[in-house]
Amino acid sequence: MNLNKSRNFSKLELGNLENIGKHSFGIPVMPKPLEGKKFLKEDLALTSMEVSINKMEPGTGMPFYHQHTENEELYIFIKGQGEFQIDDETFPVREGTAIRIAPNGVRIWRNNSTEALYYIVIQAKAESIGGSAIVDGKMVKKEVSW
Amino acid sequence: MNLNKSRNFSKLELGNLENIGKHSFGIPVMPKPLEGKKFLKEDLALTSMEVSINKMEPGTGMPFYHQHTENEELYIFIKGQGEFQIDDETFPVREGTAIRIAPNGVRIWRNNSTEALYYIVIQAKAESIGGSAIVDGKMVKKEVSW
Repeated sequence: MNLNKSRNFSKLELGNLENIGKHSFGIPVMPKPLEGKKFLKEDLALTSMEVSINKMEPGTGMPFYHQHTENEELYIFIKGQGEFQIDDETFPVREGTAIRIAPNGVRIWRNNSTEALYYIVIQAKAESIGGSAIVDGKMVKKEVSW
Repeated sequence: MNLNKSRNFSKLELGNLENIGKHSFGIPVMPKPLEGKKFLKEDLALTSMEVSINKMEPGTGMPFYHQHTENEELYIFIKGQGEFQIDDETFPVREGTAIRIAPNGVRIWRNNSTEALYYIVIQAKAESIGGSAIVDGKMVKKEVSW
């Protein structure tokens, strides 16, 4: 970790994503599928979102359904295949699947394939952002120097 | 896309990430490095964040610095290697690097390697989330059924 509050940024090096399993909750009672979950908010001092980077082993799945209170969630699958269930719908997920879930959605997922499933989960406060996020950006007109 | 406002979710299938270049801004004046950028907010009707999935070709880089107005940004590098500059600091990035940037940070990045660089950029309103995001989740005590 590289956290310095006087700077405009902080960064974290997680290494190759296949090793993400070493970054667990560290809580013995957490079920096996959560061992490959690394949360970023605290390490990076994020103020607008919680994010986790996840590796789910083949043949494992979340052992419970969950909803949220105030936060919208976005799941982005970056490698592998699995299955997702929200309310009364079930569908496959794979590299390139992105899913937004409103706080009320009752969700669960599993890796029913033979290879590890990698995904990123982001949560932020529902209805907190307005307009276009491109508009929020401001080009800084100075010469690029590397 | 699979967007139905009566449901608690929406989803999008982008396919294999190596093909992400086909999802461009579609604006002819946009520089080459932005052709492999797919924004998700509008397609998914996200209300808390803007997110893009990105592939930057070898030897290309952002042609300008930018800052933000209200939004914090998080960059997560998922494959490949490159270089990042924020304010007066320059450092390498690679698979597993995660960077939080405050709105004021002046940022630019490039792929100075020989393979494509893949990364996800998330922006959400700075200071909009409080406490632990795990606390926002509510386990739903019902039997798992697949």
